[in-house]
Amino acid sequence: MKELFTVLAPADAYRVLEAHLPVAVQCERVPLNHALDRLLAVDLVSPTDLPDFARSTMDGFAVRAADTFGASEGLPAYLAVAGEVLMGTEADIRAGAGQAVRISTGGMVPEGADAVVMVENTQAVDARTIEVVRPVAPGENVLRVAEDIAAGASVLPRGHRLRPQDLGGLAALGIVELEVTRRLRVGIIASGDEVVPPECQPAPGQIRDVNSSTVAALVQRAGHQPVLFGIVPDRYDELLATAQQAKETTDLVILSAGSSVSTRDMTADVLNALGQPGVLVHGVALRPGKPTVLGVADGTPLFGLPGNPVSCMVTFDLFVVPTLAHLSGAAETPRQTVRARLTRNIPSAAGREDYVQVRLVSDGDELQAVPVFGKSNLIYTLIRADGLVKVELDAGGLAAGEMVSVILF
Amino acid sequence: MKELFTVLAPADAYRVLEAHLPVAVQCERVPLNHALDRLLAVDLVSPTDLPDFARSTMDGFAVRAADTFGASEGLPAYLAVAGEVLMGTEADIRAGAGQAVRISTGGMVPEGADAVVMVENTQAVDARTIEVVRPVAPGENVLRVAEDIAAGASVLPRGHRLRPQDLGGLAALGIVELEVTRRLRVGIIASGDEVVPPECQPAPGQIRDVNSSTVAALVQRAGHQPVLFGIVPDRYDELLATAQQAKETTDLVILSAGSSVSTRDMTADVLNALGQPGVLVHGVALRPGKPTVLGVADGTPLFGLPGNPVSCMVTFDLFVVPTLAHLSGAAETPRQTVRARLTRNIPSAAGREDYVQVRLVSDGDELQAVPVFGKSNLIYTLIRADGLVKVELDAGGLAAGEMVSVILF
Repeated sequence: MKELFTVLAPADAYRVLEAHLPVAVQCERVPLNHALDRLLAVDLVSPTDLPDFARSTMDGFAVRAADTFGASEGLPAYLAVAGEVLMGTEADIRAGAGQAVRISTGGMVPEGADAVVMVENTQAVDARTIEVVRPVAPGENVLRVAEDIAAGASVLPRGHRLRPQDLGGLAALGIVELEVTRRLRVGIIASGDEVVPPECQPAPGQIRDVNSSTVAALVQRAGHQPVLFGIVPDRYDELLATAQQAKETTDLVILSAGSSVSTRDMTADVLNALGQPGVLVHGVALRPGKPTVLGVADGTPLFGLPGNPVSCMVTFDLFVVPTLAHLSGAAETPRQTVRARLTRNIPSAAGREDYVQVRLVSDGDELQAVPVFGKSNLIYTLIRADGLVKVELDAGGLAAGEMVSVILF
Repeated sequence: MKELFTVLAPADAYRVLEAHLPVAVQCERVPLNHALDRLLAVDLVSPTDLPDFARSTMDGFAVRAADTFGASEGLPAYLAVAGEVLMGTEADIRAGAGQAVRISTGGMVPEGADAVVMVENTQAVDARTIEVVRPVAPGENVLRVAEDIAAGASVLPRGHRLRPQDLGGLAALGIVELEVTRRLRVGIIASGDEVVPPECQPAPGQIRDVNSSTVAALVQRAGHQPVLFGIVPDRYDELLATAQQAKETTDLVILSAGSSVSTRDMTADVLNALGQPGVLVHGVALRPGKPTVLGVADGTPLFGLPGNPVSCMVTFDLFVVPTLAHLSGAAETPRQTVRARLTRNIPSAAGREDYVQVRLVSDGDELQAVPVFGKSNLIYTLIRADGLVKVELDAGGLAAGEMVSVILF
């Protein structure tokens, strides 16, 4: 039970690991329409003004604003219709003093004009003349050159996760290919003499592998690529051989350890044998998730996650998610939380960070967080829960009625 | 300007559309490891008890609890070690009265035993005898048969979106293939005489297509498959031909309309010509997004979304997202919101639902929502914003200092 002597607070444990993580981020070029949710590898700067010509934001008439000053229903301004701007073409007409040029929303405001009168505020007098019944200010109903973004301005920073509107914004600038960080390959090894693949019928005493499926999906959800190495019996040589293979072919190795102390210690020994510096953290002041092992072998991060499904998810979230974000240059780790009112007391021991599963129940305008208690060996408590509530290291617990942050699964 | 005469509130507009949507959901079978974020097409019931044998949750000794009653440091209970349960094998040993069987976490509790004493609460007297220094209650440190889930119990309901832990739970039950609803193919047509593909250099008066990229990514984010039909000039025949092709080959058609009133009306005419019942809603009491067109042609939902990027995103969220959820049998529409304190007044007109873009700023323990005002023709306001604040139909605005829900982009 080595772990008992070296437990660190979760944040400290992650810092120890982080100090040994590689800093270089690997990149690749992808077309714009494959870039959703990818992370920008470079700071993007606008190659052009947007728009690069003054555009009308209304259907109406391009005019000189001064020609409409003082116009009203009772005393309209009369303007001569000098022509029309066709959509998608250069305005090859000039709006002179006392003139109006017919224009549609999105049309190019012609030279001479500095505003657009909405068609609703005009009336045709005859084929060549309109009356304007409300004045417009200079610039009104016009999108100025570079009003959206100017050439040379910062568009999006390195590390930004690309959203749908970002892709639209890049399309607008003609950026149809871009440098993003590479998706990471994450090696996943399950271990345990009692564990069989999900498609097998377990014999008495055996159980099906749960964590490979869960961890693979967590990796996908984080935007990376799971590589499954199957189930390895609790034998040092076999575990080491598989872990070595995983280390050589992936960017990050997760070993979902057996639950007994002896197999947990073996996990640490195997990870320690993979390279330098080896195991950095063995045991964390955390429940569930105490027997977590964190390490680095020759630049590859290594994780020995506890076998219990709940512990496995909590420790993935606390340690693997920020590591993946770090390795892929993410500006921030996305974390979806909601505020909810706790329905009952959660006891906890000071000096340990606790994560308690909760179900969310709507109560009028407010959400309630109902603790779902259950042994961390259970998987179905996780399925009945919607998220986790954290009890801080130095807190003795949380009281019913408190507002808490719920980290959504 | 037909739309002015028929504007409905957004919720009413969606209900009109929903009443005409097909109810049958199409399904397909996928392997478990491809099922993340897919929607279950059937109610799943557990085929087995989980666990199907009593398991130890600790390293220690399986015992009869009664043999330990009253045990203490001062007066330990002495038990004879009858053997060991090996991991992953059937416990072929019996724990008789006065006996203890060595067991690891996850091991099968042998017949006769009804509890497990943690190894920390025992001491070896000799090779065949231990002393127990704390009593255990019956059932302590044991996972009962079916404690996780019982055979025949409901696992997950139809329409549930599968999360990582759900996949683990299904793996535990041996469910390695499952019936999910089919991803929908969403046809996307851009129109506008002034619009050119993003990879082209626009001539004066032209702009690049923004909405195809944004809408395609919004479709992907909703878990479905965009099918791009490119940019069609504002000519009725060409638009109709492309829309017909889209309707025949996809499950849902989105036409990102030009911004001028005449092209908006043409959009409605084209959608109306596609089949029965045709256009159902033309204009919504919404800003931005008023000139939205909703319809159904022979069972295929049709959307004419406004060309302005902001309007396009807001109306996609309000109308296309729930339609996709409906067509794919989703139990609920996921909507990520956070609570934040508004930093300044938002004026609004009663009788219209307003959506105002906000930037989120952390202020100690609280989030602040800072309105980002800008014409809805701009794309970069969307990029500088983190989400939208809704001003209800009957509200005259929102006041600085109010707590508001921010719908995250």
